[in-house]
Amino acid sequence: MNQLLPSDLLIDSAGEIAIRQDLTLTALGKRPADRVLRVGRLLDVHSRTWLDDQEIVIKGRRIAYVGPAGSWTGEAGTRVHEPDLAAVPGFGEAHKHIESSHLTPEYEAALVMPHGVTWVCEASHEFSNVNGPKNLEFWLEARRRGSPMKIFPLPGSAVPPTAYEWGGGHFGYDEQKQFMAESLMVAGLDEVMDWPSVWNPDNPSYDRLWGMIRATFEKRGVVEGHAAGLRDLSTINAFAAAGMASDHEGWFLDEVWQKLTHGLFVELRPHSLPDLVKGLIAKGLTDWSQIAFVTDDRSATDTLKLGATDYNMRLAIENGLAPEIAIQCVTINPARHMRLTPWVGSIAPGRFADIVLLDDVSTLSIAKVWADGRPAAEAGAFIGELPQIAWPDWATRTVNIQRTVTAEDFRIAAPGDTPTAKAALLRPFHWDDNFITMDLPVADGAVQRDTARNVTKFSIVDRFSGEAKVSKMFWLGTGPRTPDTAVGSTLGHDKHNIWVCGSSDEAMALVANALAEQQGGWALVSGGKVVARVLYEVGGLMTARPAHQLDAEMQALYAEAAGIDWMYEPTFSPRWWPGFPERLSFATLTCAPWRWVLVAPSPLAPEGFVNVSTGETHPVVW
Amino acid sequence: MNQLLPSDLLIDSAGEIAIRQDLTLTALGKRPADRVLRVGRLLDVHSRTWLDDQEIVIKGRRIAYVGPAGSWTGEAGTRVHEPDLAAVPGFGEAHKHIESSHLTPEYEAALVMPHGVTWVCEASHEFSNVNGPKNLEFWLEARRRGSPMKIFPLPGSAVPPTAYEWGGGHFGYDEQKQFMAESLMVAGLDEVMDWPSVWNPDNPSYDRLWGMIRATFEKRGVVEGHAAGLRDLSTINAFAAAGMASDHEGWFLDEVWQKLTHGLFVELRPHSLPDLVKGLIAKGLTDWSQIAFVTDDRSATDTLKLGATDYNMRLAIENGLAPEIAIQCVTINPARHMRLTPWVGSIAPGRFADIVLLDDVSTLSIAKVWADGRPAAEAGAFIGELPQIAWPDWATRTVNIQRTVTAEDFRIAAPGDTPTAKAALLRPFHWDDNFITMDLPVADGAVQRDTARNVTKFSIVDRFSGEAKVSKMFWLGTGPRTPDTAVGSTLGHDKHNIWVCGSSDEAMALVANALAEQQGGWALVSGGKVVARVLYEVGGLMTARPAHQLDAEMQALYAEAAGIDWMYEPTFSPRWWPGFPERLSFATLTCAPWRWVLVAPSPLAPEGFVNVSTGETHPVVW
Repeated sequence: MNQLLPSDLLIDSAGEIAIRQDLTLTALGKRPADRVLRVGRLLDVHSRTWLDDQEIVIKGRRIAYVGPAGSWTGEAGTRVHEPDLAAVPGFGEAHKHIESSHLTPEYEAALVMPHGVTWVCEASHEFSNVNGPKNLEFWLEARRRGSPMKIFPLPGSAVPPTAYEWGGGHFGYDEQKQFMAESLMVAGLDEVMDWPSVWNPDNPSYDRLWGMIRATFEKRGVVEGHAAGLRDLSTINAFAAAGMASDHEGWFLDEVWQKLTHGLFVELRPHSLPDLVKGLIAKGLTDWSQIAFVTDDRSATDTLKLGATDYNMRLAIENGLAPEIAIQCVTINPARHMRLTPWVGSIAPGRFADIVLLDDVSTLSIAKVWADGRPAAEAGAFIGELPQIAWPDWATRTVNIQRTVTAEDFRIAAPGDTPTAKAALLRPFHWDDNFITMDLPVADGAVQRDTARNVTKFSIVDRFSGEAKVSKMFWLGTGPRTPDTAVGSTLGHDKHNIWVCGSSDEAMALVANALAEQQGGWALVSGGKVVARVLYEVGGLMTARPAHQLDAEMQALYAEAAGIDWMYEPTFSPRWWPGFPERLSFATLTCAPWRWVLVAPSPLAPEGFVNVSTGETHPVVW
Repeated sequence: MNQLLPSDLLIDSAGEIAIRQDLTLTALGKRPADRVLRVGRLLDVHSRTWLDDQEIVIKGRRIAYVGPAGSWTGEAGTRVHEPDLAAVPGFGEAHKHIESSHLTPEYEAALVMPHGVTWVCEASHEFSNVNGPKNLEFWLEARRRGSPMKIFPLPGSAVPPTAYEWGGGHFGYDEQKQFMAESLMVAGLDEVMDWPSVWNPDNPSYDRLWGMIRATFEKRGVVEGHAAGLRDLSTINAFAAAGMASDHEGWFLDEVWQKLTHGLFVELRPHSLPDLVKGLIAKGLTDWSQIAFVTDDRSATDTLKLGATDYNMRLAIENGLAPEIAIQCVTINPARHMRLTPWVGSIAPGRFADIVLLDDVSTLSIAKVWADGRPAAEAGAFIGELPQIAWPDWATRTVNIQRTVTAEDFRIAAPGDTPTAKAALLRPFHWDDNFITMDLPVADGAVQRDTARNVTKFSIVDRFSGEAKVSKMFWLGTGPRTPDTAVGSTLGHDKHNIWVCGSSDEAMALVANALAEQQGGWALVSGGKVVARVLYEVGGLMTARPAHQLDAEMQALYAEAAGIDWMYEPTFSPRWWPGFPERLSFATLTCAPWRWVLVAPSPLAPEGFVNVSTGETHPVVW
């Protein structure tokens, strides 16, 4: 019986029914299957038990039947036998920003699928902030075009990240309701980060954010949390009471334990994972059903070096967790949490036929990966479908600057004619209630950098209005000491305006113009010219090229940057290092736990310098 | 700061937000709480660990904060200290027909809450079949009026149970979509029972049923399954492939194991629970996260005798399960499965303040029960709110019979003038592919009963059209042998027409008329008069009276029935006993695994005798 079945790329209720009607008859042996994959053993993650010598019957992209080899009664197109391999479900994760790979979804799939990743809940607030209205279309396009990785986008809650930012998109109740109605691929609301907006009725983002939470509840979605720096019991309680379903920002064992025992699904990230896994085991935790491993942000370069989700799992196993539990932490646990069990998270009938074949379970050694019922990777190489997508202008023309930026844009006029002026300074990751104050020299009517004291200039250039509105101030302990040098990027969490940091205003202008010209990425300027560029031509965040090409470009940037003298001061953050200040891309974050930040000039903060916890503004010099 | 907060009885997204905004500030100590309950210890079901000397801060009906005693910084109205009691979350279950208690929801709450039950997923196909359009209104009314038990109704998938039945309601895609949109209390689709309609595209209910499944997926709900008698691997696979999320019909260890490992959430019922728990433990199962305990059907009489969900838990504990896992099986596990974790399943911020206080954990000895943040039961007595509801006509006038039923209605005319005729017979729970055939005597132009051979008459009287359409046939091994006697009820799963079984046509008519007059319940007729009645005046299924009153009426019926001589033959069913044939109420089931059944006369089965697996009909005599 020939069937015209849906393509089964994106999930929608009508197609879902047609597919399951067919799968039902296929399971019964009344219709033929496409493939049968017979494996040495198979991990059932529902019971956490191994089943020997099983066959997985595949129809279209899904599993129709699982049982002992030879038990299925129907006819199959092809049969594959892997007697020496152990089948486990395709890995997924509940929280990842693909933007942080800086690859478009089709190339992300090619990068991570050899590592076993077959599905991901895309924490989409980066692209959401760049082109909100096209957010869903963007994330679903690669899959629509045949990419074997399932991307479940969660619209960004931080669009804009704070009430002091604008451009690119504005998501509230109406938008979230529409997203949730538009596609079953949308699992919920991406990490609610702006804690001051959640707890404080006086915060100008309060209604917008609660509107999104409301729309998510209304459509039976999951409200993902982001409780960075929220470690005291009263705030953890408040966070859970607010309806947040999860947190992925736990650093310390006590903190994670409190979050877990207060009903938050705990998503562990690799940098804190070893200590946390050891600590949880030491505490005697035997029920890991409320825990998952996630990546959050990881560059393509790091993924090439370390791995993807498999790296997280290996860290857990090396730190004492049973491999079977580690596998649950990236399969059934996150699938159940995100309410995606009908589709992913286990090797069971009705689910996508996404299977990781291990040749050694104890070391999580991946021999092959199947997705959509066919081979997607083998021996570390992607062999699945990689659609060639000519991303349209709405994705590739996102740096809207309709003028030439000049050195004058970065000049900070002196408040009077005294030889010095008071200046407000920040350092990267300056999570203090107060900004830093210094006396800086005045020359030619402008306040000047002070290289000797590790002070340089930092700026945000708006890339949404066309006007390139510029805010600027002095920063401490970061940026180039080398004269006539600046670095900048369109990657500037989470609003992703252009940030530029430089030892001269001319160099800063050059960076801004270069980034506008190349429509995003990185630019390093020294001695009056651009010495290195990295292209993120999609959304100013990603490139539609293979990971190794992007990595080569990044390595060239690093090589040039190695010739620059970079200022450095230790600051509170476990991830702030001397040398090229790549993490300045995260130093423009404004959501909790930030206080004083620099944003693009905005109605509520005309100079861009604002305490996002209180709404207070202050002149950058006085 | 005074707040006008929603009543927080029924969950809706707007109210939810207002409540959580307030809880957030309460957790932070910025707003006062209503009560603080301090307990000796508290079971965190997320991590399955005990926390000592905790305080639970309550605002309105919810939990705002949980932490070590004295750690919350705000002001509270009243403080209660229970140093010797252990707090565990209110019990819930994923699958129960409150109709089977035969109590309306407010009296059900009074019955089961002293046993720790604070929430239930109401498997509503009984009332759905009686008054489909009013189904949601019916199940939400008691809560709307203040009853502390949370009822999450799942609209019946079997409305009508098969394509051969009609009246009361017709649920398909449109209706289910509307239900899911109407209230967040609706968690999904009630047990999909009619397996022949699911797998077989030629079944006349195929599109209706898949339409309901589609609407449930579309609204991110849960599709509950009912895989009775589905025990072979290929059918279990097909069942899971069809999108069924659960099964509660497992009897045998191998069957349950296959269902669990094929992705079905397994809901264990008490009659098979001891063997299954022992068996699963013996198999080495350590991950019980995909298992819950459910009641399904239990009469008020049995609940008074055995207990409610607590009985199921004690059975599990007595059979070797750790009490903490048993508690998870009625709290976090079903809450997570039903996607209700924001509201129930744990003692955590944001959830309803529903708490069971145990004075002995190992025996699950319940001292007190709190619900909605205040005491609901103490020492086995309900002390919560019991709203007095005058149920409207749409609930109490559901037996629509506009004429007097007569003996003639039950006469089965002989096919010819031979002294005997061939007759098709059924026995209760006759799950055979073929009906039974016997030669029965003919007298006065009608085929006659044969008491000597255990043959009497069984009939279905339609109670929906007003016309009292009657179907009738001979049944073997059940019903009264005593002359001039009949018994019947409006409780006749799942369509809930009137069934009558009797040794004379006159007695049968009397039963039908008595049930019409009393608008539902049981009637036992003997010697020309009604000798016992049980009133189910609501929907013909329930009574709005306390459990003990109903029980007294049932005991009176049993006492009268004890004086009747009841036919008996063993039949396949572990729950079919000699004596009063109470379970004839279930012998009118038509969904899987049934084959030949008697239904009210219908267009597809004019005589009412039909094989629901194939659609074949047959004369009852020939």
